Formats: sequence, C-alpha cells, structure tokens
Amino acid sequence: MKPINIGILGLGTVGSGTVGVLRSNAAEISRRLGRDVNVFMVSTRNAEKAREVCPESTLVTADPFEVVRHPDIDIVVEVFGGTEIAKDLVLEAIQNGKHVVTANKKLLAEYGNEIFALAEQKNVMVQFEAAVAGGIPIIKALREGLAANNIRSIAGIINGTSNFILTEMREKGSAFADVLKKAQELGYAEADPTFDIEGHDAGHKITIMSALAFGTPVNFNACYLEGISKLDSRDIKYAEELGYRVKLLGITRKTEKGIELRVHPTLIPESRLLASVNGVMNAVRVDADMIGETLYYGAGAGSKPTASAVVADIIDISRLLTADPGNRVPHLAFQPSQVKPQNMLGMDDITSSYYLRVQVKDEPGVLGQIANILAKEGVSIEALIQKGVLDQTDAEIVILTHSTVEKNINTAIAAMEALECVHGPVVMIRMESLHG
Amino acid sequence: MKPINIGILGLGTVGSGTVGVLRSNAAEISRRLGRDVNVFMVSTRNAEKAREVCPESTLVTADPFEVVRHPDIDIVVEVFGGTEIAKDLVLEAIQNGKHVVTANKKLLAEYGNEIFALAEQKNVMVQFEAAVAGGIPIIKALREGLAANNIRSIAGIINGTSNFILTEMREKGSAFADVLKKAQELGYAEADPTFDIEGHDAGHKITIMSALAFGTPVNFNACYLEGISKLDSRDIKYAEELGYRVKLLGITRKTEKGIELRVHPTLIPESRLLASVNGVMNAVRVDADMIGETLYYGAGAGSKPTASAVVADIIDISRLLTADPGNRVPHLAFQPSQVKPQNMLGMDDITSSYYLRVQVKDEPGVLGQIANILAKEGVSIEALIQKGVLDQTDAEIVILTHSTVEKNINTAIAAMEALECVHGPVVMIRMESLHG
Repeated sequence: MKPINIGILGLGTVGSGTVGVLRSNAAEISRRLGRDVNVFMVSTRNAEKAREVCPESTLVTADPFEVVRHPDIDIVVEVFGGTEIAKDLVLEAIQNGKHVVTANKKLLAEYGNEIFALAEQKNVMVQFEAAVAGGIPIIKALREGLAANNIRSIAGIINGTSNFILTEMREKGSAFADVLKKAQELGYAEADPTFDIEGHDAGHKITIMSALAFGTPVNFNACYLEGISKLDSRDIKYAEELGYRVKLLGITRKTEKGIELRVHPTLIPESRLLASVNGVMNAVRVDADMIGETLYYGAGAGSKPTASAVVADIIDISRLLTADPGNRVPHLAFQPSQVKPQNMLGMDDITSSYYLRVQVKDEPGVLGQIANILAKEGVSIEALIQKGVLDQTDAEIVILTHSTVEKNINTAIAAMEALECVHGPVVMIRMESLHG
Repeated sequence: MKPINIGILGLGTVGSGTVGVLRSNAAEISRRLGRDVNVFMVSTRNAEKAREVCPESTLVTADPFEVVRHPDIDIVVEVFGGTEIAKDLVLEAIQNGKHVVTANKKLLAEYGNEIFALAEQKNVMVQFEAAVAGGIPIIKALREGLAANNIRSIAGIINGTSNFILTEMREKGSAFADVLKKAQELGYAEADPTFDIEGHDAGHKITIMSALAFGTPVNFNACYLEGISKLDSRDIKYAEELGYRVKLLGITRKTEKGIELRVHPTLIPESRLLASVNGVMNAVRVDADMIGETLYYGAGAGSKPTASAVVADIIDISRLLTADPGNRVPHLAFQPSQVKPQNMLGMDDITSSYYLRVQVKDEPGVLGQIANILAKEGVSIEALIQKGVLDQTDAEIVILTHSTVEKNINTAIAAMEALECVHGPVVMIRMESLHG
C-alpha cells in the first residue's frame, strides 16, 4: 500500500517529537499499520532545524497555509498552538478534504463544535488524543473502550505542572511561591505559569472529556476554574493529618439536575489510587455504570509522550480511511445528530463535601456557634479538629463536612465570617470521596 | 442503518451480562454507534433463563452450532468457555464468514494462532478485549493507543482472586489456606481454585498481551507459571518491613537475548502504583519507548465489567464492517505477515532481583558464609536483615539482592542449602522495581 502523506504545522516540542517518533519507530509502525507514514511537508520559520529533524525528502515551508493546501497531503498535523491562526489552518485543511490530528486542547475546548461540524460536512476525521493527558489513550478509552457504558463521572489529575507543585508542597512543606520557582527552574512551569496553575489547561481538557462522556457540545464557558496559587501548605498538612491528599482535579459529573464541570483543588482520601499520582504524572479516573471505576495513568506532557498520541491518531486515521464515513468513530463519541446540549450546573448547585479552616478567638462557646451555623444550613460534620493556638488569642478549627450543595456552604461561610469571634476569611477546599 | 445481528453462545455470567448491558444501555449504545444491536439468537440449555434475560424477539436454541450457522447473524459472541467445543464453534463461525467476539483467554492463549490465521483467510474480525483484565480496555491500548511505540515490558495484576487473597494475607496477617476459604465463601474463588491461584489464568492473559506487544505468535507453552499457594504470610510481612508489597504479576519483557514470559509472586516497591492495587481489582502497567510508563486499572472480572468489554468489541466490529479488511486493526496488533516468532527465554536466563529468606543456625560466621556464596555467583546484596531468633538455636536472614540472572541465584541457593548451618529450603521470591 502506498505511504500516507502527512504535513506538520509547526516544529516545536510536539512537532519535532512527532517526526522523531515516526523516524525512530518507522519499522515498528509499518509492521502494525501495513504501510509507511511519510513526513511529506513541514511548516516552520526555522528551516535549519527542519533540515536537522526531518528526512531529506521532506518539503519545508515557512508558510503553514502551503501545507493545508497541498494536494498530496492526506493528514495535517496541527501542533502550531494558539487559537487564531491554528483555527484558520484547521478549518482550511478540513475544507480541503484533509484529515486533521491536533494536540491543541484550547482550540478544541473553545472552537471544537465549529471544527467538528465542518469535519462532518466534509467527511474527514479530526483526531485529538494528544490534547488530553498527553500520551495516555484516554480519548480512545472514552470514545471506544467504554462505549457500552453510561459514563457517570470523570475526575482527573490532568495538569502536570500543578501536580508537581502540590507534590512538592506536601513532601517538603514548602510554600507555593517557592515550589513554583523551583518548577520554573526545572522547566516544569512556564515563565508565565497562569495557564497551568490557575486551572485553564485542566479546564480545556476536562471540557473535552465532558463532551465525549455525555454526548454534549464542548462548552468551555460552563467550566468553573479555580487554581492552586492561593493554596496554603498548612491546609495540605492538615488534610494529610486527616487522611487526605490535595490534588488539582478536573471533574465532570452527570447528575439528575444537570452536568457538573469544574476544576479546583480537591481533598481525596489517601487510599484512592489518584492520591498516589505524584510529580508531573497525569491520571484520569472514569466511573461508568457497567464497568465501574477504571483509571488511566501516564505522562501527561513532554515531547515523546505527546508525539506517541499524535502518531497513534495518524495510524488510526490511516486505518479508517477506507471505512464508510458513517461507520467511523464519531468525533465526540456520539453520532453528530445525537450530540445534545444538557443543563450545565453552576457552582452553587454542585454537590460536594468540604474542608473548612476557620481562625477563631480562643474562647468558650466559639465551637458551638460555628456548629450551629452549619446545622442551620443542613450541613453535617464528618470530623472537626481544633488545632493548636496560633498566637496568644487565636486558634484554628478544621472541619470536614458531609456531602451538601455548595450554596449551603457559601451561606454558612458568610455567616461564620460575620461572627465577631471569627478572624479573617474562612478557607474552603472541596473534597471528593471518589466512590462512584 | 439496519441493526447488527448478534448470536451469543452460552448464557452464563458473561453471556447474560452482555444481554443485560445491550438492553439497559440500548439508547446510549445507539447514540454512539448509529445503529441498533439486536440479540438475534442465543444458545443455552436453560431456555427458561433465556426467556427471562433476552428480548422477546430473540431466538433460543439448545444447539450452539445452530448459532454459528445461522445466515442472518453478523457477529458471534463466544462466552461458552472451555477449549474443546468452543474452539470448534469459533472456527466454524469464522468459516461461515462471521465476526467473533470472545472472552475466552484460554482458547486464545492455546489456539489463538490457528484462530487468527483462519480469520485472516476469511476476512473476518476476532475481537477479545474481555479476555484480558475484564472491562479494562488494555487490548485496545496495546493494539491502537500505543501503536507508535516499541513496547518494552508489561507487568500486570491480572488475576483478581489471587490479588484478593494476597491483600487479605497482608492486611490481616492470615495464612493462605484461611484466606482462600474466605474467598471461596465470598464467591471470589472457585470450588477448585487451581486455575486462579496457580497462575494459569494470569498466564493465559500475559501470553496474549506478550504477543500483542512484541508481534509474536501466542505461545502459552513458553510461559513460566508459579502461583501463590506456597506463599508464607511471614514473607509478606518481612517484605512490607523492607518497603515492598507481594503481588502475583504476569510479566513479559523484551530483552536483547529474547522475550521473558512469566507469572509468579513478585516483590514491588510500595511507592509504585501497582503496589496500591488491592482486593479483586486488576491493573496493567506498560513500559514503552516513547510514552514511558502507562497504567490501566479497573475491575478484571464480573458479569457487567466483562460484558462492557464484549459490547465494546461488538461496537468496534460494527464500525469496521465497511473498512477495507487490509486497513483493520490486526488481531495481534501487527500485520499477519509481520507476526514473527522470537527467542523465548527460559527462567534460568531471566534477569530479576530477589528476596531470599534463609533459616540458619544462630552462631558466628553464618552470615559470612552466605555472603561469600552470593559473592561467588556475582550477586550483590541490596539489603540484609537478621530477623529475631525463631527458637533456641535458629535465626532467619532476609536478603534483597540487586539485579542478576536467575541461574546465579539458583546456584547460590543450592550452595546455601548444602551448608550445615542452613536449615530447610531457602525461600526465594522475585522482585521488580518497575522502573522502566
């Protein structure tokens, strides 16, 4: 069978990783696929690097639009990044009948609906395994492996930078700012780390997984984002004393009232597998009605792991090229006609348990007042520990609640903060038991 | 599109689970697949049960051969069990041009080569996600998700019964025989548990994964099998003191000299994710050159989890029906012409670290003699602890070695056992660091 011709947009970390994987493992890939994958053309401003990285036969251009317009290219690999030019490139590639592989989570979380609609119309495939959790084949699991299930929830550690920082904060008791600096020195965090540490990156990924799980359009606007930059290492320590770890989780869950979609620091019991996922590693836990709990673990970023997913997508497309388009795996797991909006819950309406830390005047009666406030909102207490006195006059109370609706907690927190004996804001971190 | 017609051979746990999943989640499955899956016919000796479980329209027969011969059936689901009739049924189904989904690991590990060869010849698909680790989509990960990689090794907890027993032995310090009895009462172990506890079941599964990983024919005869029935809970306790857990692992690894394929109790460092996989759960760890380490976790058995995998295979086949057969995912991950035997290493030639427990006369000079024996075989010691005196005269020495070839350990053990100061056989358990 004749080689499949690919064109790569951008020769950064993932782009050059993709060429590297295709070259190093050319024999193994051909043994599996039954044909060769040919890097026909790349676009980059750095022609010198292209000549180092690519086979001699590869055409090199500075103009990415030349790639999406070239008649001999079967599959366009978009590892260009950003959303402006990348979107134009992807749409024009599809318009020209080319299949697309992209690692661009932001592009899909924000413009996925438009892209998939055009792809359906033009009968081409858009694959995006590399966009979520790097090389871990979680998109394939959600679209294909678990296709017999009603998926109930997904919870994932899907930002390596944040997980590295949280791991260091726990293991060394260091402050957020210090660990961030170390992460930047090690190359685990960008010079401007906002995108990672404030939950945007995790938000893009959980948004994509939510659509695949529940058969809805992608809806990044509905995703609640809360990062880790305000986390106090004291709370990580207290959580550990109570048998919990703090992780930045992307969570999506189908409830009777609607779909929850959120990213925030979360306490999880230390006995759960997700609690043991440390450093820059990623893991996604899926709960589904027939299979129950499954978990997928691996490297969530990096040149080679991400390229592993890009190349798997190239292989998949090459295999499906001859299939009746109606029989291909649908982009969002469900047939396009079956992708339907569902009610998205605001944060006030989500259900969770909560960790609260309250700084109080160390005097009799304080505990009672706080307990009364929680009782009034119907919030029951799972555990309460009074921590040692902070200074001459103040103490800290740490409370774990049972499951409740978030607006009740917010009301209770406001009432606590209005008490004279409560000093400063109440710290609130959400908890997940990860039991179904 | 017209419904796909399936015929199910056998209506035991997995067969009735499959009908159950197809009925409960019919809407969700159609939303994904774009067509209905129709349980056209089942074979069972229990017609009454069939009428309870199946839709009214389902044909029921006592003769399984009627299913594989029926012209209106597209996909035959073999959940018949065993290897004699099941093999005839599968071969005849293929001969009749039917696609096959099977959960029968024994059948594939022992007769897979013959079955896949006929399937290639007849241009039909044989899918077997349910045969390994229940509902966990590990076959899909190996064949498709990791297709860009040279796979280096696989290590899996792939027998729930054994893992349940080992978990209980560790947590409660109970003896093997007592826990086995409890497992039988709970329904986690069969009345005749040999198949599970002596490693046969895990051996079938790792044999299948080994072929997929390395592009070789299935070769169950080359698989070394050692179960957990001879494990002493004392060794589990000592291992834990040293920072290790004991798990029954299926292991396959590509080395320069050949392929290792083995099932045996194994010490793994407690910090590794596999060490936290407890109870009846399964997990498979794959190490591959580009993606590095990935891990897949979930229920390895049970009616619904296994049925989840069977139905995922039905969906996959339905989608691929219109593809050019040459473009389908190959049965053993590699194109049939590329499936090649490789040298399989005997146990003498495998490389591992080792846990040794030696009962010795409690007198000066004993330690030196043992250390000398290990040194003579080129085995270096990672840790050595002298355990408390067993009775008036004897003590126990526990040794962890660095990595070495197994024949050196066997020679050393024989030399130790020949010493006058060593009493009884030396206990040996293999270790895996699970670092690449």
